[in-house]
Amino acid sequence: MIEASHIDALKAMLGEKGLLTAAADMAAYETGARYDKGRAAFVARPASTEETSAVVAYCVTNGIALIPQSGNTGLVSGSTPDGSGTQGVLSLDRLTAPFELDRVNRTVKTGAGLRLSDLNGKLEESGLFFPIDLGADPRLGGMIATNTGGSRFLRYGDVRRNTLGLTVVLADAAGTVLDLSSDLRKNNTGIDWKQLFIGTSGAFGIVTECVLNLEPVPKQSATALLVPASAEQVATLLVAMEDALGSYLSAFEGMSGNAVRAALDHVPSLRNPFQGGIVPDYVILAEISRSSPPREGEQPLDAALEEVLAAIWERADAPLTDAFVGPPHEIWTLRHALSEGVKHSGRLIAFDLSFRRGDVMPFLDHMKAEMPEHFEDVTICDFGHIGDGGVHFNLVVAKDDPRLADPDFEADLRDWVFTAAVEQFDGSFSAEHAIGRKNQGFYDRYTPEKIRALAAGLKVLTSPGPLGTTTF
Amino acid sequence: MIEASHIDALKAMLGEKGLLTAAADMAAYETGARYDKGRAAFVARPASTEETSAVVAYCVTNGIALIPQSGNTGLVSGSTPDGSGTQGVLSLDRLTAPFELDRVNRTVKTGAGLRLSDLNGKLEESGLFFPIDLGADPRLGGMIATNTGGSRFLRYGDVRRNTLGLTVVLADAAGTVLDLSSDLRKNNTGIDWKQLFIGTSGAFGIVTECVLNLEPVPKQSATALLVPASAEQVATLLVAMEDALGSYLSAFEGMSGNAVRAALDHVPSLRNPFQGGIVPDYVILAEISRSSPPREGEQPLDAALEEVLAAIWERADAPLTDAFVGPPHEIWTLRHALSEGVKHSGRLIAFDLSFRRGDVMPFLDHMKAEMPEHFEDVTICDFGHIGDGGVHFNLVVAKDDPRLADPDFEADLRDWVFTAAVEQFDGSFSAEHAIGRKNQGFYDRYTPEKIRALAAGLKVLTSPGPLGTTTF
Repeated sequence: MIEASHIDALKAMLGEKGLLTAAADMAAYETGARYDKGRAAFVARPASTEETSAVVAYCVTNGIALIPQSGNTGLVSGSTPDGSGTQGVLSLDRLTAPFELDRVNRTVKTGAGLRLSDLNGKLEESGLFFPIDLGADPRLGGMIATNTGGSRFLRYGDVRRNTLGLTVVLADAAGTVLDLSSDLRKNNTGIDWKQLFIGTSGAFGIVTECVLNLEPVPKQSATALLVPASAEQVATLLVAMEDALGSYLSAFEGMSGNAVRAALDHVPSLRNPFQGGIVPDYVILAEISRSSPPREGEQPLDAALEEVLAAIWERADAPLTDAFVGPPHEIWTLRHALSEGVKHSGRLIAFDLSFRRGDVMPFLDHMKAEMPEHFEDVTICDFGHIGDGGVHFNLVVAKDDPRLADPDFEADLRDWVFTAAVEQFDGSFSAEHAIGRKNQGFYDRYTPEKIRALAAGLKVLTSPGPLGTTTF
Repeated sequence: MIEASHIDALKAMLGEKGLLTAAADMAAYETGARYDKGRAAFVARPASTEETSAVVAYCVTNGIALIPQSGNTGLVSGSTPDGSGTQGVLSLDRLTAPFELDRVNRTVKTGAGLRLSDLNGKLEESGLFFPIDLGADPRLGGMIATNTGGSRFLRYGDVRRNTLGLTVVLADAAGTVLDLSSDLRKNNTGIDWKQLFIGTSGAFGIVTECVLNLEPVPKQSATALLVPASAEQVATLLVAMEDALGSYLSAFEGMSGNAVRAALDHVPSLRNPFQGGIVPDYVILAEISRSSPPREGEQPLDAALEEVLAAIWERADAPLTDAFVGPPHEIWTLRHALSEGVKHSGRLIAFDLSFRRGDVMPFLDHMKAEMPEHFEDVTICDFGHIGDGGVHFNLVVAKDDPRLADPDFEADLRDWVFTAAVEQFDGSFSAEHAIGRKNQGFYDRYTPEKIRALAAGLKVLTSPGPLGTTTF
């Protein structure tokens, strides 16, 4: 437990609304989106960079560990306290100001506590949006800490690509505020320090404000479901689509039949779009879109997509066995329901992997072939972003499977998957979920000693205080 | 001078071809692209990462400063030795291997000593290219060290955005090789260390290999010259073009009448494209392009661009007074000749600035209005990248101007420009040329003390040995 004098001091800084200590108030901040339930010593909710700085300075000085928490939608135990009751949660949820839109610059400066949906809601009138497309609705600070990519990475890139500036509070005794809030698109005047705080799970500082690149909202789109002739043909199909469409292609997502069936089974509002209701083994969602409005005399995008697919279809070695252009909203609703569907089809053990684009299907094939030998009755319900090599590799076991009582079972499964992904396929053990407590062991295992030593040195140099769930 | 034993030791490592010491052989490596002539103790030309590591380890251990040199096309005295004769040049020019193209992944792994034109030449058959469009023809390592942007930044971004992985030799006593050569597009498993070596002028390590993102070569393009109704209307025009064209718009470049006239005067092969040969005060080059091939029934891009311009033209508050779509090759030849033209029109004092997009024209207006009061007979021959806020702010004085003999003249001019750009307009003193000896004083002046302290700490942590022309 934490001394009462600390609670009093923090309350004096932050006021009643800014510091929660009652169990009922803290419960939501102690519980992760999918896993774990920890215990917080307190939940600090600063409403400004200055308040954040004061809290951090106090906690570092007094040796109190802080766990920064943004939207708390992450899946790697990255934003909740452990069970000790000694860690404080520092929530970004009141850091929603400012909101400074620069229409000519196509940028916005805003608080790291704003939710993605709220940001895009506020931007609606401008015709611009923050182009990271996710199933979840996180707050911006967490998106920065994990460097999320999402479903339109192929067109717009990740959070890193779309971040121009940050304001950061370092975990040192002064709670130093680093003003890296540039709104310049080109600026090469030294180290680009903001990069240190992107994708590093909040261990190097707390992001309180950000300057983001915005893009014009697409004004036309067309979406198709494609059934590849075989797993090997997925790469051929991707190259054929990019050759024909170039940067028109804004999504090229893969969905396993198992994941689609799970969504159709567990999300009753979905319509089965496949002929005769028969879900194929693997399906590609392809989208083309344009930020320019339709012009008279111009071919509608649906027709353009159909034409490209027809040309690929007519090739002697057609990498397709079926393809149909459908209503974008319906298809994307299915795509975004996969996560929900998979979650409800049993006990889910999830992995967020990435590979060279050409290695996604070989990896999946390998795992499907090897799984029965290593683990029985485990269903692979993968889906992901073939266009950027990302795979949400989901494993599902029956909820009443007795192996779930054995902690070694999940550990062995994780070990087996990561060994194949990282050691055999040169992949990443975390594509866009970052590290957190869930992946700490794999960071330690797969990061070369020299890099770990440099990271530890950089941690001491910037934010020596205990911050976050990841140990660098 | 350097001890003969060091030369012998380095020659033993690198062979005859790998170590130059004769004055005639070293001259080209001692001379900058535009400014200065230094004196090298030797020129080391390692042909592999291992040789680079050996040279660096030897030099760090023996206190010999190394200046990494790539294509030596930079403009900030970043790649040449000083006049002392004690610094060795480490040239990347033999580091041209490997060349591993991954067509499905759209990436290439190659040597940092390859020239941009050679890279794109080797890629030609694949239909892909490295999408950084520059007037100069640098080698890749230097492009990484300066994080160049160029004329298609608006569509493709800078080198940072297009770099997936690096192999780097640190300036420590071991010449430690950091293998950061990931070819993954999504990988959030800790600090993204490669960022430290991008845009930091080679001070933190020597890049020997890189993994780069490639894009499909555009298969159609249309280019127009636009005359804005006024300086204020340039921002209106940019927003109107982006609203109508979205990510079709692949360039939005600004050219001052002075720069265009200088090019027409000094590059005889150019044709004057303006009506009656009268060059306007300011001209915008706008380009749209598509990586998809023209399809039957689709409007040609020229017509699409004309239509968009006509719609803008018809607005009551039209931000244009003239616009014409012309032959892309001819217009881009003019654009790329500006640098050459300006260089020949007198003694050039060049600045590479950047601003919020909306501040480019107000800055130029301000400088034009203030210049005569501060400096007489200095002509502003600016051009740049309005679409990303970059301005090549070129000042030209007559070659026989007596003030050129006074070293304070250029220093005062630089001081005046940077003060306005950075302090009045929140701009950057180096958009894409990085620091080098030329901008060291401005790094020291404009970088907050805390950031400088962190940078110095990071230098000690990673590459404590003397490396490059920039002091962090």
